[in-house]
Amino acid sequence: MKDINQFTITEAVKKSFRTEEGSRFKFLLEKLIDHLHDFTRETNLSQDEWMRVLTFLYDCGKISTPERHEFILLSDVLGFSALVDMINTRGGATEGSNLGPFYLDNAPRKRLGADIAGEREGVSVLCHGVVRDTLGHALPGAIVDTWQADGSGTYPIQEAGQDKYDLRGIFEADGEGRYYYTTVLPKPYTVPYDGPVGDLLRAGDRHAWRAAHLHFMIRSPGMRSIVTELFFENTDYLDNDAVFGVRRSLVAKLEPYKPGKAGDIELERQPDAMIGFDFVLAPA
Amino acid sequence: MKDINQFTITEAVKKSFRTEEGSRFKFLLEKLIDHLHDFTRETNLSQDEWMRVLTFLYDCGKISTPERHEFILLSDVLGFSALVDMINTRGGATEGSNLGPFYLDNAPRKRLGADIAGEREGVSVLCHGVVRDTLGHALPGAIVDTWQADGSGTYPIQEAGQDKYDLRGIFEADGEGRYYYTTVLPKPYTVPYDGPVGDLLRAGDRHAWRAAHLHFMIRSPGMRSIVTELFFENTDYLDNDAVFGVRRSLVAKLEPYKPGKAGDIELERQPDAMIGFDFVLAPA
Repeated sequence: MKDINQFTITEAVKKSFRTEEGSRFKFLLEKLIDHLHDFTRETNLSQDEWMRVLTFLYDCGKISTPERHEFILLSDVLGFSALVDMINTRGGATEGSNLGPFYLDNAPRKRLGADIAGEREGVSVLCHGVVRDTLGHALPGAIVDTWQADGSGTYPIQEAGQDKYDLRGIFEADGEGRYYYTTVLPKPYTVPYDGPVGDLLRAGDRHAWRAAHLHFMIRSPGMRSIVTELFFENTDYLDNDAVFGVRRSLVAKLEPYKPGKAGDIELERQPDAMIGFDFVLAPA
Repeated sequence: MKDINQFTITEAVKKSFRTEEGSRFKFLLEKLIDHLHDFTRETNLSQDEWMRVLTFLYDCGKISTPERHEFILLSDVLGFSALVDMINTRGGATEGSNLGPFYLDNAPRKRLGADIAGEREGVSVLCHGVVRDTLGHALPGAIVDTWQADGSGTYPIQEAGQDKYDLRGIFEADGEGRYYYTTVLPKPYTVPYDGPVGDLLRAGDRHAWRAAHLHFMIRSPGMRSIVTELFFENTDYLDNDAVFGVRRSLVAKLEPYKPGKAGDIELERQPDAMIGFDFVLAPA
């Protein structure tokens, strides 16, 4: 019979998977096995440490629910999510950033110029800009799907008695690719830190705060959709966002509102401030 | 503000953990981040693939219970468990192998020579040998803790109505370090394949069978404990055990029982066959 040892086991495990030659699955699996085994050999991982890793994953599974995906949170705080977003950003397009756990795929359609904040307190802000392609051409009818926390850093979906569709909206850009709506300025908030990932943050003396942001998913026929976030100049945690979501190109300037500065648009509510940001989509 | 990109994020994530310089935790965490990020960059992981990885982990969490640890099973079929066992085997000592999911830390104490099979059907086997240190000295009073499947490949703990302490026993080696007891020859069985890990095995066209084996945990004061398995020559799956538990040094020969061949010992039951194996412990 053949024998395996700590040097030959990696090839033995790879060979045990009889996957299609040249397939993406085979490639991913072999890279995963290589890195997992190299990590183990390079660290001389002890059996206690091995068990702690597996118990950590077990505990992540235990606290997870459809509304609380601890593995995504783990991916976020290890920069795995951000790195995937970076790798998948196309040249010339707006940089991608975290989807986060609060996206709903059936947010209400809103008319351009609508206010999505309702009676919520806080600084009222006009968000506006143009959706373009990488050649600079406007994309009329592009879909701007946005969601965000409120002026205290909470998503309505997190609070009993609130309408989970509040502070969300799906807008259709006008004939010039423009989008505009008013909302309330979001506050920073912490990612959930009452689970295993919170324990990891504490063990690493890390905070759980995210810089204040607006979420966006932008789509247009024939173009590659983007999921990204918009941040605000001179606000907290831009340099140490807990999930590594901030990119310099996604930080925009909040200015006092000046009627007419965003063009000839009609608004449901008169805002205090305004922020302009153009989204750029690459071809699919 | 500083910016991060797909090349600088790895250092940024490492720096975000303010862990003690030179600590084991820092070392493990940095190696983990390096390998996770290198894997992501080398594979150009797509967002869909990223989500499939996280959904897979979520599903592993969902099916896990205190009795069904899908992450250990995942570690097993990826050879991670076996590699950790190999790395932690001390020179000269018996090679380690999988603990598996069925160990109980409060098995009944049994007298040397006892039979642990009860009324179970199958080939009756005498298991015997000596527990020694790496210099060859016997270790009187060493603890031999064993557990196993029955003649149909099932652990009593898996079957309703069976006594979960059956086919288990904790023996104390005699003054010459000898252990001996009779049991029933275990059959091969499959690891659970009705969960995400089973899906992975099917995707890789792999079977779920383990070679037939006996589990052992061997302890003696001042010595490093070992967890290992004993396999039988010329039985199935020795070359393609689903969890990579087989080592050539752990495969022993099953022979017809000959009274006196295992020395002057008293047995509760007359066996059909016998298997001899000496365990070697290294100093702690």
